[in-house]
Amino acid sequence: MTDFFELTKIRQSCRDYSDQPVEREKLVKCLEAARLTPSGCNSQPWSVVAVDDPKIAAEVAKTTAQLGVNEYIAKAKAFFIILEERAKLMPAVARILDSQYWAKGDLGAFTYALTLQAQELGLGTCILGVFDRPKLREILKIDNEKPIFMVVAVGYPADPKIRNKQRKNFDELVRFV
Amino acid sequence: MTDFFELTKIRQSCRDYSDQPVEREKLVKCLEAARLTPSGCNSQPWSVVAVDDPKIAAEVAKTTAQLGVNEYIAKAKAFFIILEERAKLMPAVARILDSQYWAKGDLGAFTYALTLQAQELGLGTCILGVFDRPKLREILKIDNEKPIFMVVAVGYPADPKIRNKQRKNFDELVRFV
Repeated sequence: MTDFFELTKIRQSCRDYSDQPVEREKLVKCLEAARLTPSGCNSQPWSVVAVDDPKIAAEVAKTTAQLGVNEYIAKAKAFFIILEERAKLMPAVARILDSQYWAKGDLGAFTYALTLQAQELGLGTCILGVFDRPKLREILKIDNEKPIFMVVAVGYPADPKIRNKQRKNFDELVRFV
Repeated sequence: MTDFFELTKIRQSCRDYSDQPVEREKLVKCLEAARLTPSGCNSQPWSVVAVDDPKIAAEVAKTTAQLGVNEYIAKAKAFFIILEERAKLMPAVARILDSQYWAKGDLGAFTYALTLQAQELGLGTCILGVFDRPKLREILKIDNEKPIFMVVAVGYPADPKIRNKQRKNFDELVRFV
């Protein structure tokens, strides 16, 4: 990579995957990068089920084909299932805030780190927020009490083209004072 | 930067800032990078008040000195105040999920992007989640109805030393299947 800004520009939701399998060591590298994500009181309210067994990956893919929009995910070769863990806050903070007060934001940062590291390794990802939760719990033996935050599909992109991103204009986003 | 992993390793909460002012163009670059963050249905549920006026920055710093832990922030030269905006989801999604269902996670990713881009530019940051909200609204004329997600302090680090990060072990974080 040349720089972070370039990496954020080329990271995109990958909606078509090649047949090339994903190396376990690349998945580990993504997780190692995400492991360093900051969180409120360093509470690290996350854990991950990482799926690269082809049969189980195929089953996970099926759980994401909700709302008729995610059929392309069947070609993904691996998945990260990101779980929300109980956050332990510093005592002074825990007295005034619920343990999970910052957890969703921390999990969002963790998830983004996974996708950025994957992109740098040449992998495509797609963050999926709608899936058959009971079915996913059953396939991966995830405790009913543990919230599933997101599913991230991983694979080599079939098409290397980088699309233009549609985002708010800078002036709409920022007010300087 | 050499690579993303290295960047995540050297990004840390900066708890001592030098007197060197922060260039406006560097703040803009951080915001440009964060602007490209992915979000649910590309809803971009965020906006930012960016503060680099020294007098206003000093006032903002005071609002973060809660719980007796953030006094060092008085030396920060700039602040990003990240606001939660209404998310517009795709119709098929909006029928089943509340508009803000993914917003906190998206905002967490946005915030992390700000800090990573800042780090690459040689800036230190500290994400602050506890502050005097009514006072901050008053100083920056932020609508009472708009949630304030986080405050990010920015400045050049007084001490370039990179501390070791305390994180869960990999085996505690990940289960492969």
